[in-house]
Amino acid sequence: MTQPAFFVEDQAVIEAALERLLPSETTPPPTIHQAMRYSVFAGGKRIRPILCLEAARLFSSERDGAATAGCALEFIHTYSLIHDDLPALDNDDLRRGKPTCHKKFGVAMAILAGDGLLTLAFETLARVNVDAERRVRIITEIATAAGTVSGMVGGQVADIEAEGKTVDAAGLEYIHRSKTAALIRASIVAGSLAGGASGEDVERLRRFGEAIGWAFQVVDDILDVEESSAALGKTAGKDQAQSKATYPALFGIEKSRAFARELAARADRELDCYGERAARLRAIAEYLIVRRT
Amino acid sequence: MTQPAFFVEDQAVIEAALERLLPSETTPPPTIHQAMRYSVFAGGKRIRPILCLEAARLFSSERDGAATAGCALEFIHTYSLIHDDLPALDNDDLRRGKPTCHKKFGVAMAILAGDGLLTLAFETLARVNVDAERRVRIITEIATAAGTVSGMVGGQVADIEAEGKTVDAAGLEYIHRSKTAALIRASIVAGSLAGGASGEDVERLRRFGEAIGWAFQVVDDILDVEESSAALGKTAGKDQAQSKATYPALFGIEKSRAFARELAARADRELDCYGERAARLRAIAEYLIVRRT
Repeated sequence: MTQPAFFVEDQAVIEAALERLLPSETTPPPTIHQAMRYSVFAGGKRIRPILCLEAARLFSSERDGAATAGCALEFIHTYSLIHDDLPALDNDDLRRGKPTCHKKFGVAMAILAGDGLLTLAFETLARVNVDAERRVRIITEIATAAGTVSGMVGGQVADIEAEGKTVDAAGLEYIHRSKTAALIRASIVAGSLAGGASGEDVERLRRFGEAIGWAFQVVDDILDVEESSAALGKTAGKDQAQSKATYPALFGIEKSRAFARELAARADRELDCYGERAARLRAIAEYLIVRRT
Repeated sequence: MTQPAFFVEDQAVIEAALERLLPSETTPPPTIHQAMRYSVFAGGKRIRPILCLEAARLFSSERDGAATAGCALEFIHTYSLIHDDLPALDNDDLRRGKPTCHKKFGVAMAILAGDGLLTLAFETLARVNVDAERRVRIITEIATAAGTVSGMVGGQVADIEAEGKTVDAAGLEYIHRSKTAALIRASIVAGSLAGGASGEDVERLRRFGEAIGWAFQVVDDILDVEESSAALGKTAGKDQAQSKATYPALFGIEKSRAFARELAARADRELDCYGERAARLRAIAEYLIVRRT
């Protein structure tokens, strides 16, 4: 399945905002800004910023706040890829078909580029163009989703520690929901807050985001088994090689696929009350489940 | 010179707040929370939180907001030490007389513990008990001071790139002001904001913080030449061994000492208008210049 047509429009908004928010390649010290830009502009699909933009669109035609928040989410996503790829972690040489940040700039610079992007994310969030109360809620939401207790770093640690061990369904659920689903959920919640959503709408979108975020990771695990490195733009089959805890390893491919579909249906139901207005969010959810890369 | 007597009182406030804000050692996944706590509780003097508390005290008797912001500053300071000590960067085995985080927990966990602390810092700042407008200003101030353009990460990059090269006074000024002074300045500014200071007071305190932050790094460079590893609790003489850009290397010890004293005097003048109320801030400035560790 190719990406929905409106992705191109959203991606253009995000690319322009990323270009504006990232220090230029000549800003001193140049090397770190080159490394940050290299990884941010390495060809990501901008799923999280698009989710942020489209969640905001449900409630407002104003895109500026959601675009800025979306860039911060992309900075956090990119920092996590840079650090995950490091020799001490996944030790990956290839990301989106290009040398990883540390292969190109060295390990020290890759560590610092990740640190710089994470810091810039919060500097960026602090200037999202919504009232200060909402800005603080967006920051809390995203920081928690990126953190160690129920967020991305916690999921990454649990994932590393699960390597080669027997992990039950509850352990796997913690890994998936923290490592991937949390930041995807936060993208949706941040977008709805930037768009001015009410409390009830925010909670509905949160459940939608949680379901598609979880489904996204299940599909990622399936793709790692089924697709080639060339198609993925990263080393395929690494999960099995590293004895990672995955849905396919625990339940098999067919059950994993059924579970992803069930999560997608769950997500879809949360959007019922928005009717046609939620067509784009539905299209993203559909795309995330049936994608091949 | 021993530390000012009131440090003990402030340190107790900060230790209690750190204990409350850090996830417990048994919070899943336990390893990362153990690593984060290991480094945060490794015996730091809490200079940045104390500066934050004492800047707030000039304007308010309420300590809660400044204590919380102070903890976030300590998380950022600790993350920077963990990442700086990594094999790919300074490759240090010893910090405050104890094994560094990666020696104790491994490189992967040290990278992630640093990431976790940086993220937790912003989660913590988002809940500082002041109005949302001030919270956002505190976040902006600290994120900028920790960032790549004129903040801590930028200074660290410039420092690494200067190794073994000829650095002029302007290059050295950038390194010192970004690597160390920025976060110390932000500690003072955050404290004044948490204490409810007006715009003019915040700017005065900003200049005070800039001067003592810069002096702090000059003194650090002097101590690296003069003191033993045992006294410092870290490897001494590393600057020269690594051909680092330092004030003593560029100007000699005596001129460096005179410059630190000049900066201290500059800082002191900014406090004139506060009279006796600023006695504690003056005592901290004095302590930072004449300390031996």
